[in-house]
Amino acid sequence: MNYKISLAHGSGGGKSRELIENIFKKYFSNPVLDRMDDAGVLKLNGKNLAFTTDSFVVKPIFFEGGDIGKLAVSGTVNDLAVMGAKPAALTAAFIIEEGFEIEKLERIIKSMKETADEAGVIIAAGDTKVVEKGSTDGIFINTSGIGVIPEEIKTGGAMAKSGDVIIVSGCIGNHGASIITSREDLGFKTFVRSDVSPLNGLIESMLEVVPEIHVMRDATRGGLATVLNEIAIQSEVKIEVLEEKIPIQEEVKGVCGLLGLDPLYLANEGRIAIFVKEEDTQKLLDVMREHKYGREASVIGNVVDNTKEPVVILKTAGSGGRILDMLSGEPLPRIC
Amino acid sequence: MNYKISLAHGSGGGKSRELIENIFKKYFSNPVLDRMDDAGVLKLNGKNLAFTTDSFVVKPIFFEGGDIGKLAVSGTVNDLAVMGAKPAALTAAFIIEEGFEIEKLERIIKSMKETADEAGVIIAAGDTKVVEKGSTDGIFINTSGIGVIPEEIKTGGAMAKSGDVIIVSGCIGNHGASIITSREDLGFKTFVRSDVSPLNGLIESMLEVVPEIHVMRDATRGGLATVLNEIAIQSEVKIEVLEEKIPIQEEVKGVCGLLGLDPLYLANEGRIAIFVKEEDTQKLLDVMREHKYGREASVIGNVVDNTKEPVVILKTAGSGGRILDMLSGEPLPRIC
Repeated sequence: MNYKISLAHGSGGGKSRELIENIFKKYFSNPVLDRMDDAGVLKLNGKNLAFTTDSFVVKPIFFEGGDIGKLAVSGTVNDLAVMGAKPAALTAAFIIEEGFEIEKLERIIKSMKETADEAGVIIAAGDTKVVEKGSTDGIFINTSGIGVIPEEIKTGGAMAKSGDVIIVSGCIGNHGASIITSREDLGFKTFVRSDVSPLNGLIESMLEVVPEIHVMRDATRGGLATVLNEIAIQSEVKIEVLEEKIPIQEEVKGVCGLLGLDPLYLANEGRIAIFVKEEDTQKLLDVMREHKYGREASVIGNVVDNTKEPVVILKTAGSGGRILDMLSGEPLPRIC
Repeated sequence: MNYKISLAHGSGGGKSRELIENIFKKYFSNPVLDRMDDAGVLKLNGKNLAFTTDSFVVKPIFFEGGDIGKLAVSGTVNDLAVMGAKPAALTAAFIIEEGFEIEKLERIIKSMKETADEAGVIIAAGDTKVVEKGSTDGIFINTSGIGVIPEEIKTGGAMAKSGDVIIVSGCIGNHGASIITSREDLGFKTFVRSDVSPLNGLIESMLEVVPEIHVMRDATRGGLATVLNEIAIQSEVKIEVLEEKIPIQEEVKGVCGLLGLDPLYLANEGRIAIFVKEEDTQKLLDVMREHKYGREASVIGNVVDNTKEPVVILKTAGSGGRILDMLSGEPLPRIC
């Protein structure tokens, strides 16, 4: 392991896992953390409580379709929701650079408030630190969140099973592509909108119809390819997805083509991958497509086998398929 | 209100309150947040759950008596404990600068682990973001925490009552003085040790003996003077403290004398102010002084009256007393 932190250690991909395995788990290991899900699940007063945290360092802080505030609330709400929890409350902690404009801060707070209202969560506690000019980069926001998981809900990254159908809730890559095109130094401008959104409403309506969803995961850092790999590892399964079935907007394909990026590795902030029994697939798709954040829900593949050598295969129209790895390196720092 | 963020907005003093009142409360206002206690208290499954967050940006990250890791765990544990909660779990989120040495990160994580073990809390979830060199200042850590408040415990900043005795749990100003003397550019070195420590054990033993403690608050940013003012405002009371009764180490007085600082405004990270009924005072002092973090517990004053014009008076031996204000400005940025 390198002896200095590199951008790849924050990518959400392979290097992030290395850091977690070699440093964080070495000291913090406990049954809650070691499940490596989007939120830790604790027994508290006989109920299952999901508890999660995320820091947001996105650059730029305002982008097409959202801002760091909407991102900070949606990200944590989604980490709770994909665990089957009903998000109850968030905390919000700000690290702000001296000289930051209060008008911008207020825009961000207003956006957090609107997103929290949409998600039906309150901000229960907060903190603000200010650091000297040059000590940080505008504003960083941490949100942590708690939510109760109803008794009957059992979902988690280790629960994918052979035969499961894999669904994505909508077009992928928009958030990443939006951030790239919002950065000023690219020399061109498109209007790709970020998909950032709080998904607890969508997920609640899904669980009402299909309480037994094996896995849900929001495809954030590292993109769809990385979360499929994470789930393959946690569940010890072989996954096959069909490239042509993965919904991607033309504009996103265009941005990726120009820059040599792969949309399967771009971060999403309002898209989830879902693993469900085949017989539940159609009714799940039906209810998803009725929700504004699930209209383009699509089946993209299957869990084809249990295996001690977890793998994700991307099948393309004209070929037998290739291994789709986890993100390596860090093509796009500061995406969330 | 100024239109740009200044260091004083992160001081924990007057400007911090201004920011909270004018921006955060304007949007985030709800009954949990508006109590302005060290943690939000939510009803969840019929139980009172405390939920809190803090980001740590201390400079330097290693100092006499502790480091940013010990600070990050102690700070959040203490914010829960002073609300009467038994801390159950924390989250830990890291923002790290590219190039940060992994050996240093490991020292910090080890220190967090030791402090978490001492406090009896687990790390339930984590997050790591890495930002480009120059975008931040080494490492920032956010911890959020949850804990259950036993049914019989009612404590909070608004519960100070006329006649209450005010206790501090030990010598004040050490943390602030330690940080100052750890900064390299001062041209002198003393060995003031930070008081940083997790206080939930002390507080638990206090509540066993005196379940009705009106107020407990850790005297962090803004120091003892600022938290006494916060409590005076929340409880609408007049407070009198006796300067000669406030325990301060000679070394801390020395550092303050040299630098023209007032120890009453220096941050503490292992010291609490306690408001309790007069008849409970002695038994509380007795149990506190048996605990390693309460050996120098001292009575420093009283709540003398209810009032719509909250005020803290510092009485000195040779004078009638003067108003002890909240911290204004920010003499010592990056103290925690």
